[in-house]
Amino acid sequence: MHTFEELTHKFSERFEKDHFPPEPASLYNPNRYFLKLGGKRIRPVCCLMSAELFDEITEEAWQVANAIELFHNFTLIHDDIMDKAPLRRGMQTVHEKFGDSTALLAGDVMLVTAYDYLNKVSQKYSTKIISLFNKTAKEVCEGQQLDMDFESKDAVGIEEYLHMISMKTSVLLAASMKMGALLGGALDRNQNLLYEFGRKLGMAFQVQDDYLDAFGDPQKFGKQVGGDIKSNKKTFLLIHALEAASSSQKEELKDLLQSNDEKKVDGVLSIFKQCKADEWAKELKEKFTKEAFEHLEDIAVLSKRKEPLQKLAVYLTQRDF
Amino acid sequence: MHTFEELTHKFSERFEKDHFPPEPASLYNPNRYFLKLGGKRIRPVCCLMSAELFDEITEEAWQVANAIELFHNFTLIHDDIMDKAPLRRGMQTVHEKFGDSTALLAGDVMLVTAYDYLNKVSQKYSTKIISLFNKTAKEVCEGQQLDMDFESKDAVGIEEYLHMISMKTSVLLAASMKMGALLGGALDRNQNLLYEFGRKLGMAFQVQDDYLDAFGDPQKFGKQVGGDIKSNKKTFLLIHALEAASSSQKEELKDLLQSNDEKKVDGVLSIFKQCKADEWAKELKEKFTKEAFEHLEDIAVLSKRKEPLQKLAVYLTQRDF
Repeated sequence: MHTFEELTHKFSERFEKDHFPPEPASLYNPNRYFLKLGGKRIRPVCCLMSAELFDEITEEAWQVANAIELFHNFTLIHDDIMDKAPLRRGMQTVHEKFGDSTALLAGDVMLVTAYDYLNKVSQKYSTKIISLFNKTAKEVCEGQQLDMDFESKDAVGIEEYLHMISMKTSVLLAASMKMGALLGGALDRNQNLLYEFGRKLGMAFQVQDDYLDAFGDPQKFGKQVGGDIKSNKKTFLLIHALEAASSSQKEELKDLLQSNDEKKVDGVLSIFKQCKADEWAKELKEKFTKEAFEHLEDIAVLSKRKEPLQKLAVYLTQRDF
Repeated sequence: MHTFEELTHKFSERFEKDHFPPEPASLYNPNRYFLKLGGKRIRPVCCLMSAELFDEITEEAWQVANAIELFHNFTLIHDDIMDKAPLRRGMQTVHEKFGDSTALLAGDVMLVTAYDYLNKVSQKYSTKIISLFNKTAKEVCEGQQLDMDFESKDAVGIEEYLHMISMKTSVLLAASMKMGALLGGALDRNQNLLYEFGRKLGMAFQVQDDYLDAFGDPQKFGKQVGGDIKSNKKTFLLIHALEAASSSQKEELKDLLQSNDEKKVDGVLSIFKQCKADEWAKELKEKFTKEAFEHLEDIAVLSKRKEPLQKLAVYLTQRDF
C-alpha cells in the first residue's frame, strides 16, 4: 500500500503526459498551460487510495483518476470565466490569457477528453462509472449555479448553504472515493461508506477553507487573508454571523459589507469573533470530520489498510495552509 | 421504412419530453427554454435513417439520437455566447435572456446529459459509439476555434477553410450517420461510406447556406439576406472572391469590408458576381453533392432502401429556404 504522498507523486508523474493533440495549438495550448499550473491532485489520489483500500490499483483506476482530474480542471477553467478571476495559483487564468471564448472551448474540450479516459474502463464497470460521473458532474454544475444564485440573494440559510457546498465541492471528492472503491472490487455497502466519508471530508475541508481565509496565518496560508470578506463572498462564517448576530451587530455587518474601505476586513472579523463564528466553524469542522471517520471505521476491511486514508483526512482537515 | 419527414415527426415527439430535473430551475429552465425553440432535428434523424437503412430502428438508436441532438444544442448555446448573438430562431439566445454565466453552465450540463443517453447503449456498441462521439465533439470544438482564429486572419486559403467547415459542421452529420449505421448492424465498410456520405452532404449544405445568405430570395429564406456580408463573415463566397478577384476588385472588396454603409451588401454582391463566386459556389455544391451520392451508391444494401436518404440529401442541398 501507498501513502497519499506516494500516490500523489506517482499520479502526477503519469498525469504530466500530454492529453491533447498538437493542433490546433490555439485551442490546446491553453489547456496545456492550465494543467501545467499544477494542483494538489487530491481527487484522483482519493480515487486511487480508495481502490487500494480493497486491492492493487488497476490500470483502469489510473485512467479514471485522469478523467477525474481533467473534469476538475474543466470546472476550474469555466468557474474562472464566471467569477472573472484574473489569477489561479498565482498565474493568469485561461480566459485572462487567451480570451473568454477560447477558455470556454478549452474547457469544453477538456471535459470531452475526460470522457475519453472513462471510455477505457472495462465493460464490467463502465456503465456504473459513467453513470456516477455524470450524476456528479451535473451536481457540480448545480452547485455552481446555486452559488451564483446566492450572490444576489439577501438571506441564505445555513441549510441551503450546506446543500450548495455539498454539490459544488463535496460530491466530487465523494464520487472519486466511490469510483475507486468500485474499481477496487468493493461491494455496494463499502462503496457507499466511502462516498459518505468523502462527502463529509469535503464539507470539513470547505469549512476549514472558509476559516483560513478569515483567520489563517498569512505567512502559512500563502494567499491574502480576508479575500472572501473583501468580495462579500457568502461563506460559512458570514452566513452563521448573519444568523447569530444581535440586531445591532447585524446592522453593523450589513454596513461593513456595503463599504469598501480599509477597515472592512478588521471590522467584519471583529463581528465574526463577537458572534463566535470562529469557534462555531471549528466545531462544525470537527463534527464533519468525526462523521467522516465514523464512515471510514464502518468499512469492512482490516483497520491497518485504512491508515493512509486516515492520514489523508487529517492532512485535509487539520491543515493551516 | 420511413421518410425523413416521418422520422423527424417521430423523433420530435420523443425528444420533447423533459430531459432535466425540476431543480435548480435557475439552471435547467434555460435549457428547457432553448430546446423549446425547436430546430430541424436533422442530425438525430440522420442517425435514425442510417440505422434503418440496415434494420429496424432499435431503442438504443433512439437514445443515441437524443444524445446527438442534445450535443448539437450544447454547441449552439456556447457558440451563441462566443458570437455574442442576441437571437436564435427569432428568439433571445440563452446568454441574452439568462446571462453569460448561466448559459455557460446550462451548456455544460446539457453536454453531460448527452452522455447520459450514450450510457444507455448496450455493451456491444458502447465503446465504439462513445469513442466516435468524443472524437467528433473534439473536432467540432476545434472547428469553432479555427473559425474564431480566421476572424483575425487576413488571408484564409480555401483549403484551410474547407478543413474548418468540415470540423465545425460536417463531421457531426457524418458521425450521426455512422453511429446509426453501427447501431443498425452495418459492417465497417458501410459505416465508413455513410460517414463520407454525411460529411460531403454537410459540406454541400454549408456551401448552400453561404450561397443563400448572399443570393437567396428574402421571401423564402426567412432571414435577412446579406447578414454574413454585413458582419464580414468569412464564407465560401468571400474566400473564393478574395482569391479570384483582380487586384482592383480586391482593393474595392477590402474597402467595402471596412465600410459599414448601406451600399456594402450590394457592392460586395456585385463583386461576387463579377468574380463568378455565385457560379463557383453552385459548382462546388454540385461537386460535394455528387461525391455524397457516390458514397451512398457504394453502400451494399438494396437500392430501394436508400431512397429516404436520397430524398433527404436532395432536400438539404436543393433547398432555397
